[in-house]
Amino acid sequence: MASEVAEEWAQGTFKLNSNDEDIHTANERRLKELIGATAGKLHTGRSRNDQVVTDLRLWMRQTCSTLSGLLWELIRTMVDRAEAERDVLFPGYTHLQRAQPIRWSHWILSHAVALTRDSERLLEVRKRINVLPLGSGAIAGNPLGVDRELLRAELNFGAITLNSMDATSERDFVAEFLFWASLCMTHLSRMAEDLILYCTKEFSFVQLSDAYSTGSSLMPQKKNPDSLELIRSKAGRVFGRCAGLLMTLKGLPSTYNKDLQEDKEAVFEVSDTMSAVLQVATGVISTLQIHQENMGQALSPDMLATDLAYYLVRKGMPFRQAHEASGKAVFMAETKGVALNQLSLQELQTISPLFSGDVICVWDYGHSVEQYGALGGTARSSVDWQIRQVRALLQAQQA
Amino acid sequence: MASEVAEEWAQGTFKLNSNDEDIHTANERRLKELIGATAGKLHTGRSRNDQVVTDLRLWMRQTCSTLSGLLWELIRTMVDRAEAERDVLFPGYTHLQRAQPIRWSHWILSHAVALTRDSERLLEVRKRINVLPLGSGAIAGNPLGVDRELLRAELNFGAITLNSMDATSERDFVAEFLFWASLCMTHLSRMAEDLILYCTKEFSFVQLSDAYSTGSSLMPQKKNPDSLELIRSKAGRVFGRCAGLLMTLKGLPSTYNKDLQEDKEAVFEVSDTMSAVLQVATGVISTLQIHQENMGQALSPDMLATDLAYYLVRKGMPFRQAHEASGKAVFMAETKGVALNQLSLQELQTISPLFSGDVICVWDYGHSVEQYGALGGTARSSVDWQIRQVRALLQAQQA
Amino acid sequence: MASEVAEEWAQGTFKLNSNDEDIHTANERRLKELIGATAGKLHTGRSRNDQVVTDLRLWMRQTCSTLSGLLWELIRTMVDRAEAERDVLFPGYTHLQRAQPIRWSHWILSHAVALTRDSERLLEVRKRINVLPLGSGAIAGNPLGVDRELLRAELNFGAITLNSMDATSERDFVAEFLFWASLCMTHLSRMAEDLILYCTKEFSFVQLSDAYSTGSSLMPQKKNPDSLELIRSKAGRVFGRCAGLLMTLKGLPSTYNKDLQEDKEAVFEVSDTMSAVLQVATGVISTLQIHQENMGQALSPDMLATDLAYYLVRKGMPFRQAHEASGKAVFMAETKGVALNQLSLQELQTISPLFSGDVICVWDYGHSVEQYGALGGTARSSVDWQIRQVRALLQAQQA
Amino acid sequence: MASEVAEEWAQGTFKLNSNDEDIHTANERRLKELIGATAGKLHTGRSRNDQVVTDLRLWMRQTCSTLSGLLWELIRTMVDRAEAERDVLFPGYTHLQRAQPIRWSHWILSHAVALTRDSERLLEVRKRINVLPLGSGAIAGNPLGVDRELLRAELNFGAITLNSMDATSERDFVAEFLFWASLCMTHLSRMAEDLILYCTKEFSFVQLSDAYSTGSSLMPQKKNPDSLELIRSKAGRVFGRCAGLLMTLKGLPSTYNKDLQEDKEAVFEVSDTMSAVLQVATGVISTLQIHQENMGQALSPDMLATDLAYYLVRKGMPFRQAHEASGKAVFMAETKGVALNQLSLQELQTISPLFSGDVICVWDYGHSVEQYGALGGTARSSVDWQIRQVRALLQAQQA
Repeated sequence: MASEVAEEWAQGTFKLNSNDEDIHTANERRLKELIGATAGKLHTGRSRNDQVVTDLRLWMRQTCSTLSGLLWELIRTMVDRAEAERDVLFPGYTHLQRAQPIRWSHWILSHAVALTRDSERLLEVRKRINVLPLGSGAIAGNPLGVDRELLRAELNFGAITLNSMDATSERDFVAEFLFWASLCMTHLSRMAEDLILYCTKEFSFVQLSDAYSTGSSLMPQKKNPDSLELIRSKAGRVFGRCAGLLMTLKGLPSTYNKDLQEDKEAVFEVSDTMSAVLQVATGVISTLQIHQENMGQALSPDMLATDLAYYLVRKGMPFRQAHEASGKAVFMAETKGVALNQLSLQELQTISPLFSGDVICVWDYGHSVEQYGALGGTARSSVDWQIRQVRALLQAQQA
Repeated sequence: MASEVAEEWAQGTFKLNSNDEDIHTANERRLKELIGATAGKLHTGRSRNDQVVTDLRLWMRQTCSTLSGLLWELIRTMVDRAEAERDVLFPGYTHLQRAQPIRWSHWILSHAVALTRDSERLLEVRKRINVLPLGSGAIAGNPLGVDRELLRAELNFGAITLNSMDATSERDFVAEFLFWASLCMTHLSRMAEDLILYCTKEFSFVQLSDAYSTGSSLMPQKKNPDSLELIRSKAGRVFGRCAGLLMTLKGLPSTYNKDLQEDKEAVFEVSDTMSAVLQVATGVISTLQIHQENMGQALSPDMLATDLAYYLVRKGMPFRQAHEASGKAVFMAETKGVALNQLSLQELQTISPLFSGDVICVWDYGHSVEQYGALGGTARSSVDWQIRQVRALLQAQQA
Repeated sequence: MASEVAEEWAQGTFKLNSNDEDIHTANERRLKELIGATAGKLHTGRSRNDQVVTDLRLWMRQTCSTLSGLLWELIRTMVDRAEAERDVLFPGYTHLQRAQPIRWSHWILSHAVALTRDSERLLEVRKRINVLPLGSGAIAGNPLGVDRELLRAELNFGAITLNSMDATSERDFVAEFLFWASLCMTHLSRMAEDLILYCTKEFSFVQLSDAYSTGSSLMPQKKNPDSLELIRSKAGRVFGRCAGLLMTLKGLPSTYNKDLQEDKEAVFEVSDTMSAVLQVATGVISTLQIHQENMGQALSPDMLATDLAYYLVRKGMPFRQAHEASGKAVFMAETKGVALNQLSLQELQTISPLFSGDVICVWDYGHSVEQYGALGGTARSSVDWQIRQVRALLQAQQA
Repeated sequence: MASEVAEEWAQGTFKLNSNDEDIHTANERRLKELIGATAGKLHTGRSRNDQVVTDLRLWMRQTCSTLSGLLWELIRTMVDRAEAERDVLFPGYTHLQRAQPIRWSHWILSHAVALTRDSERLLEVRKRINVLPLGSGAIAGNPLGVDRELLRAELNFGAITLNSMDATSERDFVAEFLFWASLCMTHLSRMAEDLILYCTKEFSFVQLSDAYSTGSSLMPQKKNPDSLELIRSKAGRVFGRCAGLLMTLKGLPSTYNKDLQEDKEAVFEVSDTMSAVLQVATGVISTLQIHQENMGQALSPDMLATDLAYYLVRKGMPFRQAHEASGKAVFMAETKGVALNQLSLQELQTISPLFSGDVICVWDYGHSVEQYGALGGTARSSVDWQIRQVRALLQAQQA
């Protein structure tokens, strides 16, 4: 008969009474209509306190799986794109100043790698969500010798809670989930910030597809990156929920207090937001156009000064000296009013006799990035390694 | 010679120059004084960006170990106390209203169990701290083919970072640490709140030792629970640091920006706070006196109404009916102006013929708690199980 | 014809088209249906950026008035109650330890006075909300020489914004409002915390009316203070919205960015919450029962040790010495195992010859509170002064 | 003799004893050494609770004055610069996309105007700080009839607190100060963000002076905007302190609890931070170089499409139609592959007969900005009006 009630819910035919206090009493009332007084046994050994938190854990367990899936989809989209556009170079920035040539894929992967940590953390949060509090009663436990391990197995939980007072009133798993979302949103806000800059007229590295931007009939060249701004802005909202819950929990006496009721709206709102944001981010990344030519034109010889120093290091000069020598070359070029790569070999040799004809390779951006072959660097082999690593992580997590 | 420099640091004889930009240039300068220009090789393939974050990870890895130790000490103290005082009963509260008799040890364990989750989380945070970024350079990676796996093994890290841009600018491990501390402090603030209440004249369940309270020569009966108030208050400060860092990170462009410099003070302050708070909490718990008599006197028959219902359930009545019958008994007692346990068997039998002589057992508080024998409940066997579980967890984590 | 459109909105007969982008284009479209192409002039010199923020300010201006009214109602209820129950004494606590006898009205007024600051701040926030941005266009201003002062006068704003870029993108007034609410909720959370304690069996100073608590058929003596717990918990939620908005704003480039869209949900939710909480608080205070007898019984002679010292001060002894003398009396009473007021005059005189027969007045709680006659103290005259002050403030603010 | 003690503090010759509990007992002890037992009267009618909060208010009152001065200096610097560079035009952005030509001074003033609100708020906060709690005792008030109005006048406070319980435990003025700082930092973070972008190679609108940036011998063209990044980052730290304090206050029982001790470090740190940040911001603004040529080159005819619509509006066309007509012109130019201002009069007249020879004025950027002459717009007259308004505000606030 319980399955009949379930069927009514599934069909949307379950009718709520105004007297039903909550989902649990509604079910018991309906069961009573179907089978009589025996339905009164349904609540035996249970309490609203342990039922409510069990419900929330069931819901969140499912949500974590959904969000994991969406996050994997986003990471996969990024990695696929990184693989496809491995040969595109553009400036890497520090302090928002052009620093060194890097692969565009290296940039994509820098954000994808950050998201793999979110993915790992979400699994850990899910593990702590997936613990069964049922059988804790209101506070003291269950007085009828219920077999909680059996309940756990039937409801497919990973473990049971250890202490009934703690079980009915701890909301760590909610706080953890909200913080997980906050940190994930922080990552997405940083990626959005980069892309908003890259979308400006001034950078012009990328262009959002129409579906993810808002145009203007008056200014067709103006494409407002609304999708990215929304992603960036949601970091605030999500963190606000995390901050709110922690403040609610702070200093609360132990066991159940009505204050805990604040948990659910926070979880629902943040779940919805994360689901939407992850899908929008996937859409943005998969439909983004890149302007490879602009990217290339943004590279300039002065970004190779570090490489010039490493050229000398490879010839045996201690790094500190090489750094100084390269600085002298930069100064010489500036004084002569030419680009760094316009200095003649003779001019370079006045700085150090270690310079020889092969210095010409330094001025090649493709050659530059290929030097960074240590694991994690921007050389092609290392970018390929990163792609393999991230894919392996995804596979392991999905297992 | 590097060991000579290390020795100088250890001895406190290392002299800083005003020209030393940071610890790394100071070491290189000193080494140069000792061995000449070859010292200039020290910085080869390194950058301040990857060095600074490596330093921070080394420091935090150690801090996590220290804090783990202090947390284990606190949990152990609580568990020992729970074991020693297993036979003390007192009221369990929900909504700060007396609800059901429970064991004092059950209350202690409810907080200890919460702290085991903090302990588990700290190990996870430490795992993500213990990842080596060295070899990432400023942004593009290392151009000299450094063997990062070798560095990892030598510096005893668990893994290497995957992407050089991410490695030099992600501060997830800092945010995670600060949130870990915030959630742990939330737990301690709740325990402190309980104890502050139990210390009041009105509750009078416990008494802080003089070392952890402040007396007054004028009001010797007034012992201000300063230590507990400080614990409770620190939850705000610690969370403030977490909130601050996340706000600093939000919307930051990728790679290194000076904004990231905010990470260190937050980490140092929070580490110091956590270290102090955990030790104070251990001191409070280990020196606390309990007033067993007051605890016992705070129990009253009306807290046994739930047990009365379960008495009938055990006789075969569906719970919903039993709940109503018990309500009738409560009402009858109230009407007659007597305590619930003063109702005669005859009177009870007018409510239900299932009442018989053995109802007398219901009025025994010791008997009451013993009913809650399902795992996680307040029966002695379950409390013992909890103690074993927590001890096993501690042992596993220390391994 | 504009009034016809307004009428349709008022009657609820306005029909939205799926093509209407927002309220402004809907109105223009409808007007066009009514009067033809001239309706196309409606948007002249306007932009969504300045319209949206004007709308929000109009809405919030009204909300502030509503919330001010509800806050005044709460304060008035508290002051009325304080006036009516001026002669009820009970313990004042510091560190949650009984400290000195005070008037119950003094406690009520301590919270009412805090709320008057919220009331004052809300008027200041409203002043900054009530500034007209219309005429700022999208960013550069209005190109048709619109008379913004005329608009201001017609729309009844207090001032016009000074700079069009700032006007369309600053959300200070939203942040201020959210912080106002956060601080007000902090006050209410503290009052709720006090009352939750006073509702416990252990304190038993007050009793919530049934409308503001949740009983239990099984435990009729247990009245869960749900209303107070909800008030306390909302402080977290409201502050979370404040934190969220500030994080969203941090580091945003100037002028309008889509991120600003996060402002409205925060404002709406917080307005609703504040409105509900203020009304619940008024209901709680106006229907609360006090247990005067329990309050009186909670007073004890040891709370008068400070007064004993002041007795000696009035006889000419420097306070530091008087404090020591009183401490000796306390110690003597403790040693003899009697209450402080059981020491005989002879015994007191062994401590100081300044003690004489009039020391008996010190042991009278009514006499005790009457000593605190300086402004702001707990003497009746001072409590009356407080009541007059708060009433005068309310009247001034309503003007 | 009190002045002698003061002199010792001023000279730095005051010697602290290890027995001195705090500044107040130290002063009393020293006074006793100088004048004997009468010094014991010093504490009469006082308590640590009201003294500590009086000290904090005295300190913060001074801090507010200092910070007000620094804020005025920053605003004045901005206004002076706005006046001097009134004729520099550059793109105004919305959504970080080029939108319309504006005056550089209009941008400066947009941030200056935001800061005037901070300045106004700081005065309001100071007003609430400048309220005297002395005479509130520990909780119940002063029992010796101290004239609090006299104390107020002597200590130059604006008012006295109304209720002794509230006076010793409310920290609204601290929370308000921390929030004031948070909102002010949010403004500065947005200005810093703009300038960081304008400093990039891609924008190249401004250049920081060497004193406020960090160069690199290797990459002399790379000037890291460290000062701006630090300003931006501090918004997080400051808000973290605000969040921390509110969490500490939430749910605290009334009157003094040790938790309140968290207030001081927050205030000191935030004061120091604000002082430093305001001075750095003033330094940055006063030494910034602008690249007027780059600014001019960033303007393009497509930013005038709105103006083209307004041209038609001035000829009598309803705005909605004019907007469409301008959109057609934009489309025509795009189709023909020419800039918008390259369309011939004949071509424009195919769109609307209202176009005539004077349309040529539309293409002049100087003419464009001059249209925005309504108050708050970017026309020269309006910019001058803004300058006068801000200067008048400063003068009024300093009065």
